[in-house]
Amino acid sequence: MTILVTGGAGYVGMNVVEALLARKDRVVLVDAGILPAVVQQALAPHGALVEVIRANICDPAAVEQVFAGRHIDGVIHCAAVTAGPAREASDPASSIEVNQNGTLNLLLAARKHAVRRFVVTSSAAVYGESLYRLQRLYEDISPAVPVSLYGITKFAAERMCVRLRELWSFDVVCARLGTLVGPWERATGVRDNFGTHSQLACFALKGETAILPQHAVRRDWVYSRDVAVGLIMLLDAKATRHAVYNLSAGGEWGGVEEWCERLKAAYPRFSYRTAAANEKPNIGYTDRDRCPLDIGRMVSEFGFKPHTTAEAYDGYLEWMGRMPSALV
Amino acid sequence: MTILVTGGAGYVGMNVVEALLARKDRVVLVDAGILPAVVQQALAPHGALVEVIRANICDPAAVEQVFAGRHIDGVIHCAAVTAGPAREASDPASSIEVNQNGTLNLLLAARKHAVRRFVVTSSAAVYGESLYRLQRLYEDISPAVPVSLYGITKFAAERMCVRLRELWSFDVVCARLGTLVGPWERATGVRDNFGTHSQLACFALKGETAILPQHAVRRDWVYSRDVAVGLIMLLDAKATRHAVYNLSAGGEWGGVEEWCERLKAAYPRFSYRTAAANEKPNIGYTDRDRCPLDIGRMVSEFGFKPHTTAEAYDGYLEWMGRMPSALV
Repeated sequence: MTILVTGGAGYVGMNVVEALLARKDRVVLVDAGILPAVVQQALAPHGALVEVIRANICDPAAVEQVFAGRHIDGVIHCAAVTAGPAREASDPASSIEVNQNGTLNLLLAARKHAVRRFVVTSSAAVYGESLYRLQRLYEDISPAVPVSLYGITKFAAERMCVRLRELWSFDVVCARLGTLVGPWERATGVRDNFGTHSQLACFALKGETAILPQHAVRRDWVYSRDVAVGLIMLLDAKATRHAVYNLSAGGEWGGVEEWCERLKAAYPRFSYRTAAANEKPNIGYTDRDRCPLDIGRMVSEFGFKPHTTAEAYDGYLEWMGRMPSALV
Repeated sequence: MTILVTGGAGYVGMNVVEALLARKDRVVLVDAGILPAVVQQALAPHGALVEVIRANICDPAAVEQVFAGRHIDGVIHCAAVTAGPAREASDPASSIEVNQNGTLNLLLAARKHAVRRFVVTSSAAVYGESLYRLQRLYEDISPAVPVSLYGITKFAAERMCVRLRELWSFDVVCARLGTLVGPWERATGVRDNFGTHSQLACFALKGETAILPQHAVRRDWVYSRDVAVGLIMLLDAKATRHAVYNLSAGGEWGGVEEWCERLKAAYPRFSYRTAAANEKPNIGYTDRDRCPLDIGRMVSEFGFKPHTTAEAYDGYLEWMGRMPSALV
């Protein structure tokens, strides 16, 4: 099988690409930027199994060129702009442009070239205010009240997929991802919210002292490699019963202190503590407390089974040790 | 005051323009198309009070030119693509382009030129599936599950307004409109769903027999002139407590048969009947039954009071008689 992965050099993208290559799929990796050295290093052993194309999904002609002359069986669409508030205010257009128009360009080309399945990465951000108001989020029951331009445009893209799935009889499915933890988060400039675990990993690699906020955060974390597994389940499935699936750890996650302890064991020069009163933390939580996504659909339909937190931290530490230049 | 009305020659737009001109506001009417003769005829008596500009809101430079060199106090943004299923499938991009990017272009220019209030026409379509599942729809409580690309892009535009209202401290407010009935619905090509009342008005003007579907429809109809009144309330208000308001008749509407009777009285050659079994109606209902929008916010905050159905039909008949060429 030949699978196109958009945003292939990004956080979600690289987890998907590695998982596809591990099972000897051919990968067409599309990314808008030049591949970072660490990504090139990771892809090198796979030789001709991966083809890298630099293309902007906002350019319909460039998208058409990606599909033309290649037989692409499936798409896992990971390219996105995840703007933080400053970029939302200064450049609101780019969120619409990439997250909606870009997705539409890909859908149009994929349909024209008879792609068998199109998997779209959506986000917990589509739930928006419901993340803070409810106890657990279900795909069809919990209201989507997106707040950020990221969440707004991801929801619009998702609903557009659901609509075109029906109008075109086209096989597209969306996965709402929790907050990723693990390999391949890098400070790329595209992702304005650099995750708490990766911030701590940077401190550990530099042997510095992390100062945590006083309030412990509750997020719906999910191991980045489990996200790749889930997306590939959606790609492989003979059929999908639904158009939208939550894809996360289902609320089972050990938390940040466990990660700090693991980092301290692996990087003895690293230390951490909670901020004293009036002390400014140097670790940021990227959002308020959020409730978890229910993953019953993924579990019952595809047998999705996330790793434990400890296993996820094992994998993350192994990767950090192997490619520290991804983080510092 | 000088008010910019986008989509000013359209259904909502012309109701707003007429209401603003009636109170001697200066109107800058922006529309993407050439003004139809019947619109020109209606504007002629107002002379220099109305300035007509042909411009496409998807073109940021054209939008900037509209604001530059004019002192625009407020905007009522009515331009939209209301694609039906055929156009959704063949040209999904235009809904995003006009309803979201177009709205954003206007917001950027309005903010730059210090416009005091920006009123956006949203739609009951943002509620989507909730229109058929629930009994009554409330702005913050009832889930938005938009289905059509129109509803999807209107919801995204609305949420973007709510977000930028906060990030920019910019005074923008959105009104979710029910299904309009009354003056200024024309078959323009932009509006794919030609309303039931207007279909009947065309039959009456031509003296033909209308054949109604067997199933009586339940829609959240609202008099088009009441929509204009409500939008201007949102424009004039010193401040608005909310960012989003339902704007409709609150579920009080007499229905289609009353309209048929009024048409028969005014146009004796017109007749109507319900389709026999296996007979194909020549009147279409543009959607399934929908529940009403609750208008408590508009009523309690601004004293909004919709006309009765009988009064609305009086106004519609008077307008039909005065400008039949709008419909046939």
